Amino acid sequence: MPLATAQEVGAARRPTLVRQVIDSLREQVASGEWPVGSRIPTEPQLVEALGVGRNTVREAVRALVHAGVLECRQGSGTYVVSADEMTGAVSRRLAGAQAAEAVEVRRAFEVEAARLAAMRRTREDMAALDGALADREAAWRSGRVDDFVEADAVLHTVIVAAAHNAMLAELYASFGAAMLRASIATGVGDELRPEDHVDHHRLIDAIRAGDPARAAAEAGAFLEV
Amino acid sequence: MPLATAQEVGAARRPTLVRQVIDSLREQVASGEWPVGSRIPTEPQLVEALGVGRNTVREAVRALVHAGVLECRQGSGTYVVSADEMTGAVSRRLAGAQAAEAVEVRRAFEVEAARLAAMRRTREDMAALDGALADREAAWRSGRVDDFVEADAVLHTVIVAAAHNAMLAELYASFGAAMLRASIATGVGDELRPEDHVDHHRLIDAIRAGDPARAAAEAGAFLEV
Repeated sequence: MPLATAQEVGAARRPTLVRQVIDSLREQVASGEWPVGSRIPTEPQLVEALGVGRNTVREAVRALVHAGVLECRQGSGTYVVSADEMTGAVSRRLAGAQAAEAVEVRRAFEVEAARLAAMRRTREDMAALDGALADREAAWRSGRVDDFVEADAVLHTVIVAAAHNAMLAELYASFGAAMLRASIATGVGDELRPEDHVDHHRLIDAIRAGDPARAAAEAGAFLEV
Repeated sequence: MPLATAQEVGAARRPTLVRQVIDSLREQVASGEWPVGSRIPTEPQLVEALGVGRNTVREAVRALVHAGVLECRQGSGTYVVSADEMTGAVSRRLAGAQAAEAVEVRRAFEVEAARLAAMRRTREDMAALDGALADREAAWRSGRVDDFVEADAVLHTVIVAAAHNAMLAELYASFGAAMLRASIATGVGDELRPEDHVDHHRLIDAIRAGDPARAAAEAGAFLEV
């Protein structure tokens, strides 16, 4: 996959070439050629494969390290730590957001996801939904806050997965992880109060019934402002 | 704003220091200290202000150039071209998305925005909405496809603004710009057909009436699948 037919022509040209190398590395990650967790080729291997200079490869790799896609581990190599830059960018933006703002964006994703899930859920989706709902009930009964918050997040993630929209799922995942870290996802405090439970059976039943409008209304009601 | 109390201690420490400088530059941009369109301080000025080495500053600036936040203009300096990294990251992700996927995510934002706008619209918002609606009607009557697509996008952006949720507005803007570039926003082809018009008066009336449920239903109906 050589990118440069001529020698590099100095600093003035470098940004464009670096950009091409960045795009090429991004593509390897996005396509799954280099999955999350894998070690990418060494610097000399990339120089050889891409036909560009060492400094260009180094700058491109560093740009993706700073973007949160790659990670250099001392004495071990460079690893893929995230499949995309959106997650990091959304997380950073969310860190500066107000809780109410974030909850409203979360609501936007969850309402549309519930609507689409009611139209597209497969038999496998329904099994996963029933399992996640049962786990959420069990976590509630255990009284452990962390378990309940986690089980609630898993159930909502399974609903979004049942919408069968990859971009929606990725945005929701970027968002959900950051919201959970910020503990603003659920409004659940240090201990579980009865009002934290919020029965999710009606939502899952609306998805099972294939009723998009009812599923959207149920999903929206959880985060009504 | 010095970041390093000691001298830089070689390549092994550099990523962390670069990360700090990146975060500091990001903060200057995000806070509006360096607005979009402005020229940032020179490399020597940043070296002086941050108390770090030239290579560190250079690497941090380049990382933000590659992230689409800064742009180096030959012989002129480095300029802020985007207030955040989310836009670029979302745009790149959207480039790999299917049209139907993108329309569904757009629907998620627009439905929630219409609902919130019905609760929060100010007198100024209503004036902007009425103006944007009139412009959209005029663009329709002109028969010019580009004008109509643009006027339609402006109306929806004004609705999102009336929701008074900054994060939702930024996500929608990241998204809308990329969708318009990809010409998948509207489904409008080379010429305007009667079915492209889609009357938006009922949506604006629902927002004026302060009826969140009706506004959400009207907004959702445009992009029903």
